[in-house]
Amino acid sequence: IVFSMAVFKRCYKQWLWFMVLFMSFSVIYVDAVWPMPQMISSSMARYTLNPREFIFQYSSGSSAQPGCSLLDSAFERYYPLIFTDYRADKLSVCSGQAALRAETVWGALRGLESFSQLVYQDDFGEYFVNETEIEDFPRFQFRGILLDTSRHYLPLHAILKTLDAMSYNKFNVFHWHIVDDPSFPYQSSTFPDLSSKGAFHPLTHVYTQIDVKRVIAHARLRGIRVLAEFDSPGHTQSWGKGQPGLLTPCYKGTVPSGTFGPVNPANSSSYQFMTRLFKEVTSVFPDSYVHLGGDEVDFTCWKSNPDVRGFMLKMGFGTDYTKLESYYMEKLGLNKTAIVWQDVFDYHEKIPVDTVLHIWKGSPGQIQQELSSITLAGYRVILAAPWYINHIDYGQDWEKYYTIQPLNFTGTEQQKTLVIGGEVCMWGEYVDATNLSPRLWPRASAAGERLWSDEKMTSSVIDAFPRLVDFRCRLLRYRVMLI
Amino acid sequence: IVFSMAVFKRCYKQWLWFMVLFMSFSVIYVDAVWPMPQMISSSMARYTLNPREFIFQYSSGSSAQPGCSLLDSAFERYYPLIFTDYRADKLSVCSGQAALRAETVWGALRGLESFSQLVYQDDFGEYFVNETEIEDFPRFQFRGILLDTSRHYLPLHAILKTLDAMSYNKFNVFHWHIVDDPSFPYQSSTFPDLSSKGAFHPLTHVYTQIDVKRVIAHARLRGIRVLAEFDSPGHTQSWGKGQPGLLTPCYKGTVPSGTFGPVNPANSSSYQFMTRLFKEVTSVFPDSYVHLGGDEVDFTCWKSNPDVRGFMLKMGFGTDYTKLESYYMEKLGLNKTAIVWQDVFDYHEKIPVDTVLHIWKGSPGQIQQELSSITLAGYRVILAAPWYINHIDYGQDWEKYYTIQPLNFTGTEQQKTLVIGGEVCMWGEYVDATNLSPRLWPRASAAGERLWSDEKMTSSVIDAFPRLVDFRCRLLRYRVMLI
Repeated sequence: IVFSMAVFKRCYKQWLWFMVLFMSFSVIYVDAVWPMPQMISSSMARYTLNPREFIFQYSSGSSAQPGCSLLDSAFERYYPLIFTDYRADKLSVCSGQAALRAETVWGALRGLESFSQLVYQDDFGEYFVNETEIEDFPRFQFRGILLDTSRHYLPLHAILKTLDAMSYNKFNVFHWHIVDDPSFPYQSSTFPDLSSKGAFHPLTHVYTQIDVKRVIAHARLRGIRVLAEFDSPGHTQSWGKGQPGLLTPCYKGTVPSGTFGPVNPANSSSYQFMTRLFKEVTSVFPDSYVHLGGDEVDFTCWKSNPDVRGFMLKMGFGTDYTKLESYYMEKLGLNKTAIVWQDVFDYHEKIPVDTVLHIWKGSPGQIQQELSSITLAGYRVILAAPWYINHIDYGQDWEKYYTIQPLNFTGTEQQKTLVIGGEVCMWGEYVDATNLSPRLWPRASAAGERLWSDEKMTSSVIDAFPRLVDFRCRLLRYRVMLI
Repeated sequence: IVFSMAVFKRCYKQWLWFMVLFMSFSVIYVDAVWPMPQMISSSMARYTLNPREFIFQYSSGSSAQPGCSLLDSAFERYYPLIFTDYRADKLSVCSGQAALRAETVWGALRGLESFSQLVYQDDFGEYFVNETEIEDFPRFQFRGILLDTSRHYLPLHAILKTLDAMSYNKFNVFHWHIVDDPSFPYQSSTFPDLSSKGAFHPLTHVYTQIDVKRVIAHARLRGIRVLAEFDSPGHTQSWGKGQPGLLTPCYKGTVPSGTFGPVNPANSSSYQFMTRLFKEVTSVFPDSYVHLGGDEVDFTCWKSNPDVRGFMLKMGFGTDYTKLESYYMEKLGLNKTAIVWQDVFDYHEKIPVDTVLHIWKGSPGQIQQELSSITLAGYRVILAAPWYINHIDYGQDWEKYYTIQPLNFTGTEQQKTLVIGGEVCMWGEYVDATNLSPRLWPRASAAGERLWSDEKMTSSVIDAFPRLVDFRCRLLRYRVMLI
């Protein structure tokens, strides 16, 4: 068995090899890999794996060697996953080897996952792997899952378990929608009041700096980037509790109504606050991207406020409040690449060319139109709208997530290359740790294959079904679905 | 605080008392009980409970005394539920007592549950109970939950945990839909092949006699009856695997097609088999009721089979296959009271007067009509149709379970008394241990209150909502929802 794996990401320009020792044996069963590799061919030749003799080994020519903590720890994780119920009672017969060749350590992680899925047990508990050759790479470079920790707090273990499951599905971006209107669980070192006053509970329902570091480290070891979102100027009700003066006071006639709207774009103190907050955030979350939100800004409150109206006049925005939102978003400028929700494109004129637009709404036709428009304007785009997986129906609905065709829109080949990937969104209105996992898996796996695999090779729902059933059992064994 | 509790069930004609010691203190907060008691009045007078001094005690006049294993074990269960995070670090201040008076041990269990729900903690971890008087009894005597262990196997711990949650909701019947078409997990001592050939796995996906005993014992300690269903003559595909000759061979023209239909009603061996099986079943499941199923019999296969057609001729049934099903159901006669699905009423003429009909289908109008017809014919009825809780939608749907009015149909007062209760059904097409709990709770709690409480006192969804939210938190603390 030889894995040879080429991966697009270019974090490390090097070649890695490692090997597994196993034993030749008889012939029967071929298992599948989810998501489907770009090329897989296997024979009925079956080799027995002896858990007692099985080792992961760096080959002598590999640029990674023992001490590469990322792969060392991956080997430690995968051994018990591959030999789930091994009780040290098997004997070796003979031995062979498998090779995995990857351009980057991240690719090596994906290959390791594929290898683990090739191993299966017979009724007597013996482990087998068929002679197999795989060449693989992802179709899209951005394969994300969004968790919303504001509408319901998710304990750390629920996030870590989701990261585990993501890695088995070859997702590579954890989009952490960490704060929103209902609560502000991120414990900021610069502005501790944001969570002490804005979280559901100041001690139990927060993410400390240590928690965040743990999530990032856990994700990194599994080849997952952590994309933090601090959505503004809307969706910030909880921010106002710990940062008085940040939000726009809404007016009823000539007097303040006592309620608050989006961040006040007329105060220079708002920008000073945001700059300091994002200085911290971009340092705590080391990814080169940051998500700035920018969706669903309700202009009613801004319109009611005399200071905001005065600011509009002064800036020459007339009565076009989209110009005000545009102004606000521009002032957030950071030294990172921004991802924003599609609203920012729909309303605004000036957006930095490297900004990534995130499509979250519309009918299938509107989504196609949005894909065309954004890519025609030269911006990169992430598609989330078809994968709002928090929505549920009775029965099997994975098919609708599976049959999405992200590149099915009017545009040039060049435009199509601007679709960098897609994202499964698990909004938290009705989701907490009690129902997250069964709602997410294996439904998100359908999107996982769509984002990784060749579309033509995975066009049949009927062919996918038994493979998905099999993969679900694997997720059960890997203990990422609650039992 | 005095609980005085009268319960309809007449298993024991006696009075029980026991007491709790506690400490008088200050005034603030009143917690609610779910489902709503028939009468509850409480004051703002608040007493501190000292976990170190708190004891359950039988009063000297009680007919139950130490050694009553049912209540002794209930005391042991409820102490850690009431004092969830007690770490033996509290001091006593003074003491008082609460009394619970119940006609039966089962009533005492319900009262104990209500008492546990009155206890709450303040921010400093101190336990309180307000001065409260409750008089309570259930509106309906049959308050059931159906679990389907055939379409997906449910491991024992999932069943036991459901029983725990049922007791917190004051449900009192576990309807165990133990076998069906997909699998036969019940390990019969008389016919071991039924599970060794008909279960999903002969060793891991079965319920042994010991498992069944454990379920029954666990349920009994929580005041829950176990109603076993062995559904026939339809829904028996899995039975055929371990009992060749039991099912009707379907014909295509003049030759057997290789597929099988319902139990073969033309063979005397079928009745001999059923008699022997039910002899075992009625002994293993000691409840005085047994569920015989009788739903959704597809006559196509019977019609295709020449032997069945010959039998119809011989019996003078003409072409009316409902007469054949009727004949079959009658021949099952047992020394227990039968519960059957409504189909048996819809199709049949002769049904023993003590049979209970189980309504599972139809539009709201059809359900009302069915309630009228069945009770007019003098039969007792259980309402399940509005509570098919395996069906899910996005968002809050507990309201529709809550606002069901089981007695809202045309009929005399006498007819209304024949509605003995209702049942929440969790069919297993898409349900296994990974999603059972979050799908069941707190949605089934809405039905729980409908079946226990006074309808007028619990008519408002708006009033119920904060109480249900609070009760859900309690279920989380009691660890019956997976976290």
